[in-house]
Amino acid sequence: MALKKKVKNLDAVFNPSSIAVIGASREPNKIGHVIVKNFVDGGFSGNVYPINPNAEEILGLPAYKSVLDVPGKVDSAVIAVPAKAVAQVLDECGRKGVRGVVLITGGFSEVGNTEEEKKIAEIANRYEIALIGPNCMGVLTPASRVDSVFLPIYKLGRPRVGGISFISQSGAVGGCIVDLAARAGVGMGKFVSYGNAAVIDECDLLEYLASDRQTEIIVVYLEGVRDGRRLLEVAKKITRKKPIVMLKAGKSAHGAEAALSHTGSLAGSAEAYSAAFRQSRIIEAATLEQLFDFAKIFDQVLPCGKRIGIVTNGGGMGVLAVDSLEYEGLELAEFSEETKKLLRASLPSYANVRNPLDIIGDADSSRYEVAINALLRDENVDAIVVVILFQTAAIDSSVVNIVIRASDLRKKPIIAVCTGGEYTEMHKRILESYGVPSYSSPSSAMRALARFISYAEHYSRYNKVPCDAPIKKSK
Amino acid sequence: MALKKKVKNLDAVFNPSSIAVIGASREPNKIGHVIVKNFVDGGFSGNVYPINPNAEEILGLPAYKSVLDVPGKVDSAVIAVPAKAVAQVLDECGRKGVRGVVLITGGFSEVGNTEEEKKIAEIANRYEIALIGPNCMGVLTPASRVDSVFLPIYKLGRPRVGGISFISQSGAVGGCIVDLAARAGVGMGKFVSYGNAAVIDECDLLEYLASDRQTEIIVVYLEGVRDGRRLLEVAKKITRKKPIVMLKAGKSAHGAEAALSHTGSLAGSAEAYSAAFRQSRIIEAATLEQLFDFAKIFDQVLPCGKRIGIVTNGGGMGVLAVDSLEYEGLELAEFSEETKKLLRASLPSYANVRNPLDIIGDADSSRYEVAINALLRDENVDAIVVVILFQTAAIDSSVVNIVIRASDLRKKPIIAVCTGGEYTEMHKRILESYGVPSYSSPSSAMRALARFISYAEHYSRYNKVPCDAPIKKSK
Repeated sequence: MALKKKVKNLDAVFNPSSIAVIGASREPNKIGHVIVKNFVDGGFSGNVYPINPNAEEILGLPAYKSVLDVPGKVDSAVIAVPAKAVAQVLDECGRKGVRGVVLITGGFSEVGNTEEEKKIAEIANRYEIALIGPNCMGVLTPASRVDSVFLPIYKLGRPRVGGISFISQSGAVGGCIVDLAARAGVGMGKFVSYGNAAVIDECDLLEYLASDRQTEIIVVYLEGVRDGRRLLEVAKKITRKKPIVMLKAGKSAHGAEAALSHTGSLAGSAEAYSAAFRQSRIIEAATLEQLFDFAKIFDQVLPCGKRIGIVTNGGGMGVLAVDSLEYEGLELAEFSEETKKLLRASLPSYANVRNPLDIIGDADSSRYEVAINALLRDENVDAIVVVILFQTAAIDSSVVNIVIRASDLRKKPIIAVCTGGEYTEMHKRILESYGVPSYSSPSSAMRALARFISYAEHYSRYNKVPCDAPIKKSK
Repeated sequence: MALKKKVKNLDAVFNPSSIAVIGASREPNKIGHVIVKNFVDGGFSGNVYPINPNAEEILGLPAYKSVLDVPGKVDSAVIAVPAKAVAQVLDECGRKGVRGVVLITGGFSEVGNTEEEKKIAEIANRYEIALIGPNCMGVLTPASRVDSVFLPIYKLGRPRVGGISFISQSGAVGGCIVDLAARAGVGMGKFVSYGNAAVIDECDLLEYLASDRQTEIIVVYLEGVRDGRRLLEVAKKITRKKPIVMLKAGKSAHGAEAALSHTGSLAGSAEAYSAAFRQSRIIEAATLEQLFDFAKIFDQVLPCGKRIGIVTNGGGMGVLAVDSLEYEGLELAEFSEETKKLLRASLPSYANVRNPLDIIGDADSSRYEVAINALLRDENVDAIVVVILFQTAAIDSSVVNIVIRASDLRKKPIIAVCTGGEYTEMHKRILESYGVPSYSSPSSAMRALARFISYAEHYSRYNKVPCDAPIKKSK
């Protein structure tokens, strides 16, 4: 996909070798302070230039009166000065050769100040600056330690490096998801709160992320779009190669009004959006939970079908898993005779060797190992859901290694279900941080798995790749 | 409701003045050790008698060879001896005058050993012992420190005292929910894993909990029932006074088979159950999440209608909340002129005083106080959903006090929505532990609120109580 200059310049936003923070501050509670601190504390390896006309030094770094005063090259800038000062500093950025700008400042079209926003856009376009914002919450690239999200880390956690890139029209909703991801152990490639989209809009970001090697899954939170046709065309092309998971807010009548008042963007009907999403193979999330649950499953190897094998140390959870599986249109795998023989030989006599495979409440890690290995080998099983109740006396942390090792073989998707309190959550977080999608309930796991299997079918057919290939290898 | 002797004797199970642990052990990893330790560590105020023919002392308590050797009165016993020894020790319990027994031991009807289970039931019935089990995970009464759940506390947390009582056919599923409740700050009255229900079944427990002053909400996890007609009749009577939230597992074709193999109980079709639930005013939960989400909202004051006021410091979350509200059939309240005037006078000029009320990302606690107080006063608002994004710079822990104070007035239901990571979860837990139902997303909050409002309507009509009365006061 040939990228426009403006979109190509997004490289400067996500992977700059030097960055200026315009509006940097010495006051700890100011946005312009938090952002400088993020770069310093985060270990950003390039140069950081605080810009402030009244400071000599900020957080140990020499400060400059203007970006024009910086001695070296400036790749990218974060702007957090009052709205009326933006035009001038943006023009200075252009003259300095800055290619990417994240404009945090609000007070533009979202409050009716469309004239000033147009002016800003003209300046950015004149210099071919890839400008994110205005009225946005910042940008995050965990791999390059770029972090212009202006909220402190103790309040809003930063996720590990991973393949999910997330673009959000709402800074608040975006921040919640990033914070959730950090806590759950889910990795992220890039996060962009794009605000009013005066220059770079959701389509530009989609195009950029489609070509981005760091991005395996694109996740979008959207309240309204200016050019729905373009969005769907862009998305349709991308979803042949990369999954897009999207939550469209403002689908109800009053929700659309609320969205209009919030971001000034027009929203369409729920049905129209759903139909369009299906056509473009966008995976639609109906809620915040689904957005998060769906996103984290797509870096698994492609399943060859929808026959699911279930392993559990709690019978009741097996029953719930089967209920959810049927509800989502998946199939309960019929174990091969060989599998049954193998399981009968290795499991205690009181275990029933059928699917869902209840390895009983006294199962330890080695019983999980036997069960998972048998199902990995069984050609009748396309994906494995492993329910682990960490409350039982026989279970210890070693079961986590068993599941991670099996998942690392990348033969079949392996999904974990762990429901419970602190001890459970700790282990769930470890599983997730090693790339095993882990859910709090059978229903959320099966729902995500169903979306993945349906997308995988489309993907393998379109790309003529064999099933059990990972999506990312095809790039 | 006149209770049978057997059901009345459940008092001895939940609030005994003395308890024997038959099969008590000195080995830390044995069930018979964990249970004694629970009573000792939990601070149970009555006498605890470990019964073990080969030990002098267990955890500092003198051990006895048989329950018949205990010098004092024994109200209740927990039995965790091998299946073949159960009949004898149960008979000894009967001769000693023990009125309540929790029989942990498995190996009865669930593995085809129905003859032995019948024998056990006969002994219990002969002595009018309220027997829970066999093949169960134990019983929990946080208020009286009764804790025969045989899993260690670091793996399965114990919840604070509260009004939710939970009976579960599956020990595993039950344990997960208890563990979730402990972590989330949700309180519980009683928890019963009732296993094979040889003597005391789900109907007996429902009847007991209906008359139990500690129980405000009854939550049930069920895989199958022996006498569906009786269950529904019992439930129909109870739901006029107390809400029952129920998750029926084994609703799908294969799920029913799995349930049969797991607990030996027959399951019916999903449609049949749902229809029957509606008739009996049972609140049906479709998933584990819903079971948990629904249960914790019912101790709020009754709402007078379905007009919801929303307060948020994140515009996007407001849009999502309105989408969910419409999806669930609730109404967006139209603020009164007085409310609008009041809000205009107190909120910054850039805040739009309409519902959903976006008090903007720079809102601090005092702005929440203004907004919540205005909505509490507004007669057009029946319930308030407060979205708090704890990620913002302006928010601190004091907002939690504002919400708790408003909730304590018990004028209208107040529900919180907090989405995020560690910092958010900490505050969500505080809110929940002070009785403010707190959800991770607008959709889960609105779904629970819709169930509550629908039940409240039925309840006030049937009991001819004014709305805004709490359910529990009517007992």
